[in-house]
Amino acid sequence: MDSIRVGMLGFGNVGTGTYQTLLMNQDRIEQTVGTNVDIVKILVNDINKKRTIDVPHGVYTSDVNDIIKDPDIDIMVEVMGGIEPATSYMLSAMEYGKHVVTANKAAVAAHFDELHKVATDNHVQFRMEASVGGGIPVLSPITSVLRANKFEEILGILNGTTNYILTQMSENGMSYEAALKQAQELGFAEADPTADVEGIDVANKLSILMALGFDHHILPTDIPTTGITKVTPEQLADAKERGKVIKLIASAVNSGSELKYSVKPTELPLDHPLAMVKNEFNAVFLKGNAVDELMFYGKGAGPMPTGSAVAGDILQIVAEELR
Amino acid sequence: MDSIRVGMLGFGNVGTGTYQTLLMNQDRIEQTVGTNVDIVKILVNDINKKRTIDVPHGVYTSDVNDIIKDPDIDIMVEVMGGIEPATSYMLSAMEYGKHVVTANKAAVAAHFDELHKVATDNHVQFRMEASVGGGIPVLSPITSVLRANKFEEILGILNGTTNYILTQMSENGMSYEAALKQAQELGFAEADPTADVEGIDVANKLSILMALGFDHHILPTDIPTTGITKVTPEQLADAKERGKVIKLIASAVNSGSELKYSVKPTELPLDHPLAMVKNEFNAVFLKGNAVDELMFYGKGAGPMPTGSAVAGDILQIVAEELR
Repeated sequence: MDSIRVGMLGFGNVGTGTYQTLLMNQDRIEQTVGTNVDIVKILVNDINKKRTIDVPHGVYTSDVNDIIKDPDIDIMVEVMGGIEPATSYMLSAMEYGKHVVTANKAAVAAHFDELHKVATDNHVQFRMEASVGGGIPVLSPITSVLRANKFEEILGILNGTTNYILTQMSENGMSYEAALKQAQELGFAEADPTADVEGIDVANKLSILMALGFDHHILPTDIPTTGITKVTPEQLADAKERGKVIKLIASAVNSGSELKYSVKPTELPLDHPLAMVKNEFNAVFLKGNAVDELMFYGKGAGPMPTGSAVAGDILQIVAEELR
Repeated sequence: MDSIRVGMLGFGNVGTGTYQTLLMNQDRIEQTVGTNVDIVKILVNDINKKRTIDVPHGVYTSDVNDIIKDPDIDIMVEVMGGIEPATSYMLSAMEYGKHVVTANKAAVAAHFDELHKVATDNHVQFRMEASVGGGIPVLSPITSVLRANKFEEILGILNGTTNYILTQMSENGMSYEAALKQAQELGFAEADPTADVEGIDVANKLSILMALGFDHHILPTDIPTTGITKVTPEQLADAKERGKVIKLIASAVNSGSELKYSVKPTELPLDHPLAMVKNEFNAVFLKGNAVDELMFYGKGAGPMPTGSAVAGDILQIVAEELR
């Protein structure tokens, strides 16, 4: 069978991680899905920029239509980030009959219903495993092998930057400012950390989890959200003395008649499964009415873990639709 | 669309959990897969036995051919347990064109390659999520959204009975005998606990995990296996003093050139993700070459959690093959 042709928008951390994952595990991938998967076009701002990865001549393009309108491209991967123009590009690609994979939580959380409707209308898949929890498989299980459940509770530690900062403040008594600086030096926090530390990133992810788990899309801007900038080392030390730990928790509870949801620093008892989730790790805790308590734990960010999730979505589309 | 017709072999804990899960969440299931799923035949030894669940007249049968050879049945669920006749029944059903779902780790571990070959040859699905980790979705992620990875390490706490006993011995200083007795009283251990406490159940599950994660089937009888019957409260107390905990660990490491595997009581540092897995809970810890460390945690047994996994497999087949 011919190889599967993928076009990718963006070539930052997630894009390079996806490219490297597909390259590094080419033999296993060919064996499990029965075909090669080739990234044949990558949309970048500057096709002459020096990069750490070598790609074949002609792969870079600065014209998105080289991907969206190329009938030989089967799948479009969107890893450019930001709500626009990413959302418009994804909608166009699906209207042109392409399956779409994205890691873009802001775009999915803002336009969940529209993106899914256009996918359904055009008989293509729209997948977004990497948008929540990085490499941790959580969206796919919720929508596949767990679908015999009604979910009652979703709790998450969904941001590695803030979890790293809170862990360092709690375990090493650091101030918020010192912990943030250390996170930035280690590459766990961006130069402008606002979206992370104010909880905006987490609200996007909770919006997606609720849409899939509760079949109800709440805009992230409608989720009451408090970040970690006002948490003090004294509060963390006081919690610890009482056998508790403070984490930035995304919480959604479905009582059947009512949905309650928030993002805020929350005290957890030390024997709660989420209490052991430290530093840059993420986890999602679920309660289903048949399966009871579950937790999924792993790396919520980073080029390779997130690339693993994007590549996994690509391979699922190949296995289900293109083989 | 017509409803999906399921035949089930066995109606013990897992069978009743599956039946109840499908019944309790009928509305959500119909909404997500677009059709009803009906269990229309159940093979039991005694069709006149009084049971806790009412099923419609005519559903019970004592003749397996009422299921295997009924052309109107789409999916056969095997939850009778034991290697034979369960394996023969599953092979026959697939030869008759039926998709098969099983929770039977002993049968899958003993005949992994043959069961998969017959499924492939007959273009049907063979699914077994419930055979490892009960309700925890782990086999399905390994074979779907994680398939872009090569797995380097699989560690598991895969048996609730032994984990319950070790937790009680460690936290409450109980003897092995007293903890086993308590587990039996609470329904976490069977009257004859041999398969659990000697590690045989865990070896079956590790065999399945390796077959899917490493593409290499090792018979459970070829896995060096030590149970927990010789672990003493003194060893557990001594480990605790050194900041460790003893768990019954299924371990498989793939160096690329060599596979190493065992089931045995193992000391873990307290900050290992598996160290917090207590009592009847199970967990699987994976390391993939792209995704890095992952852990899946939840209830590894019980009618409803295991029923959730069986029902999930049924609904995956409906979504992928029968819709």
